[in-house]
Amino acid sequence: MQLGILYGISVGTGDPELITVKGLRILQAADIVTFPQGINNKPGVAQKIISQWLQPQQTTVPLYFPYVRDQNILESAWQKAAAIVWQYLQQGNNVAFACEGDVSFYSTFTYLAATLTKLHPEVVIETVPGVCSPTAAASELQMPLTVSNERLIILPAIYTVAELETALDLAEVVVLLKVSSVYKQVWQILQKRGLLESSWVVEKATCSDRKIYHNLQYHPHLQLSYFSLLLIRVLKTAL
Amino acid sequence: MQLGILYGISVGTGDPELITVKGLRILQAADIVTFPQGINNKPGVAQKIISQWLQPQQTTVPLYFPYVRDQNILESAWQKAAAIVWQYLQQGNNVAFACEGDVSFYSTFTYLAATLTKLHPEVVIETVPGVCSPTAAASELQMPLTVSNERLIILPAIYTVAELETALDLAEVVVLLKVSSVYKQVWQILQKRGLLESSWVVEKATCSDRKIYHNLQYHPHLQLSYFSLLLIRVLKTAL
Repeated sequence: MQLGILYGISVGTGDPELITVKGLRILQAADIVTFPQGINNKPGVAQKIISQWLQPQQTTVPLYFPYVRDQNILESAWQKAAAIVWQYLQQGNNVAFACEGDVSFYSTFTYLAATLTKLHPEVVIETVPGVCSPTAAASELQMPLTVSNERLIILPAIYTVAELETALDLAEVVVLLKVSSVYKQVWQILQKRGLLESSWVVEKATCSDRKIYHNLQYHPHLQLSYFSLLLIRVLKTAL
Repeated sequence: MQLGILYGISVGTGDPELITVKGLRILQAADIVTFPQGINNKPGVAQKIISQWLQPQQTTVPLYFPYVRDQNILESAWQKAAAIVWQYLQQGNNVAFACEGDVSFYSTFTYLAATLTKLHPEVVIETVPGVCSPTAAASELQMPLTVSNERLIILPAIYTVAELETALDLAEVVVLLKVSSVYKQVWQILQKRGLLESSWVVEKATCSDRKIYHNLQYHPHLQLSYFSLLLIRVLKTAL
């Protein structure tokens, strides 16, 4: 029996129509469609995005990826997920894994693919790029993310204030992903630097319930959800 | 007569199937389809990407954007392009502008949109995000662009060696866009830092003639085309 192929498919940031034509073609042709299982028995983010595209004959398989930092717990989950996917591949099924955002950009798929490759070097994996959150957020804001020779820094987390200060010194545009837990400290730095008026928060970009916050001087405190991003234009390039 | 809408549509990095479902829907519904004119009477990059998607009744309008740095020449070209587009919008036509890569990411569309908005504040502009070159290149390389808490710096040009050194000190992943003109100097810095084996060049990502260069220690000199990108993994995050 010929091995099936595992496809990592970027499904974009929320709007189901932001999947690429290629991603949709491969998604709909796959025998098995997997995605990170939602929490509290709710559907996951990627699962919701693709639900309208699924075909009646397709089998959906949620995979469990815990939201923890413990490396042992994580690796155990990756191995379980890899074992499930491997079984389908061995039976000759093509498996599509739906990734929220872009498959190469801070994606859970990376761990699944790496674990599978380690356990079964003969596995065949292909990925389809897609829309990632910084460019999606810029479109929502109706502004460019970057122009001309602007330098861009993307920080997925911030551990020290100094780190953000260095980024603001170096780049014209800084994007902070998953900013909810550090928003208050970040706000203070932006205030000190006079950057609150050239910063924007986009929560759940391209989702039906997305929110945009500007004039951040009026928002020292924001209760944001996990998928919230802060875009800072350190220097305004003349257009 | 109601004004038409100007749509900035991201068409991805080369593979025509990397346009989003939304982008394709709006592109094919537009009365007028514009794109940056190619050089030397050849079709432009975005034009080639969308050619298979165009409908017989659609009018295509190449717009001239010169590849120069002179601000006066540039502004004059933007104004001419804006005047052409505005005429169609005033006649009630919806106009789609096809952008190579993502419309918010170092795109010519930004200048057209800014010029139009300045001249005609009543203009209605919408953008559709898409696949940008760093994530497309990562997919081509079959590796993640970023994982976990990795910091990402994207440099569209390099003016000083110190600038690249600072970026390499700060981030786990550094991407240099349009690296062709500075490749030799960059190569020397990567050699000094022992990073040649964790650096990759992707030329024309997702195009039919795309090329990948790895083991850069054997490639101190490369003749690269304009759309070449260098991806540097400064620190290998364990997977």
